[in-house]
Amino acid sequence: MPEKRKKLALIVHSGTLDKLLCAFILGSTAVSMDMEAHLYFTFWGLNALVKGNLEKAGLPADYRHMEESMRKKLKEMKYPTPYEMLKRMKQSGLLTIYACTPSMEMFGIKKEDLIPEIDKLAGAATFLDVASNADITLLV
Amino acid sequence: MPEKRKKLALIVHSGTLDKLLCAFILGSTAVSMDMEAHLYFTFWGLNALVKGNLEKAGLPADYRHMEESMRKKLKEMKYPTPYEMLKRMKQSGLLTIYACTPSMEMFGIKKEDLIPEIDKLAGAATFLDVASNADITLLV
Amino acid sequence: MPEKRKKLALIVHSGTLDKLLCAFILGSTAVSMDMEAHLYFTFWGLNALVKGNLEKAGLPADYRHMEESMRKKLKEMKYPTPYEMLKRMKQSGLLTIYACTPSMEMFGIKKEDLIPEIDKLAGAATFLDVASNADITLLV
Repeated sequence: MPEKRKKLALIVHSGTLDKLLCAFILGSTAVSMDMEAHLYFTFWGLNALVKGNLEKAGLPADYRHMEESMRKKLKEMKYPTPYEMLKRMKQSGLLTIYACTPSMEMFGIKKEDLIPEIDKLAGAATFLDVASNADITLLV
Repeated sequence: MPEKRKKLALIVHSGTLDKLLCAFILGSTAVSMDMEAHLYFTFWGLNALVKGNLEKAGLPADYRHMEESMRKKLKEMKYPTPYEMLKRMKQSGLLTIYACTPSMEMFGIKKEDLIPEIDKLAGAATFLDVASNADITLLV
Repeated sequence: MPEKRKKLALIVHSGTLDKLLCAFILGSTAVSMDMEAHLYFTFWGLNALVKGNLEKAGLPADYRHMEESMRKKLKEMKYPTPYEMLKRMKQSGLLTIYACTPSMEMFGIKKEDLIPEIDKLAGAATFLDVASNADITLLV
């Protein structure tokens, strides 16, 4: 009998480039290790999934002076952008993306405003149910 | 034999409205699913439990320009305030609130300065002990 | 047969004093409880491990006005500095410190730039492997 697949359950609350990269690197690495990755986007994280926003995500004010040089370095390293990382993760078939429905209402965001890669519109109960059976639970 | 009750162990390090709402939505949802919720308040999270502070919690500087419209929207949605959410969670009998004692000393906060809903004044060891037997561990 | 040692797996993404203290208090408490502590430093957390930086870590802009009084209070309490806490944790033999290799490349940080207490230079896969067998997983 094959070993049960491990699970990462990650809440993405932040929408800044440093935190999105962190979330997507964790997610990408998880699926490359044949783990399931469950990413639940809420608050600023959900706002980042509005069409066009992932491309615009920048550093928080405390680190804004480093944004230019970080972007340049990432380009030099031929690092994929957050949206490219998200699309590649999807291709693995191991990623599930959740959009937090109360956040959608709070920010007046509609399903059609969001990128099409989202799998489920869901509340916190759906995420907690997944997380309570996960091996790794994190919030970024 | 009934299934063992699942447990959420959540460190609340932040004291801004977006993070407090996130913490309290997770906690409220957990207890509504018949899970135990253990919320350990430290640093800015602990400061938010000083009497009168939960009502004043606002957005971090990076998002302050959205505070007015978020408050308005939450009112429209008839969303409970963080303090109301906390009181409702308490009524479930499934919530335990911990106040971090080193943070209390660091900020010169006394027991009588804090809201009365707190269950235990405790250090990190108490929390780690609970968390090491929890199903979901998060820090916000 | 002795009980298996419990494990804390903690990602340190932040580099501000409040978050570093939080991480190091959790780590110190874990090892004092005979748990293994695995701290993975990435982004601003990794930058904090560049020689000389732990001493300079301050509060984020939103709380900078409290930095002076917090430092004074910590001195009064004879609280160890973050670097002292890290060294004490190391002495327990239960702490493993990981430096995130993609962050090193992104910020142009070399091994010799970092404090000597680091155990492993590693990518996210190494951390996820540890975390998937840990009892407590957190990101700060």
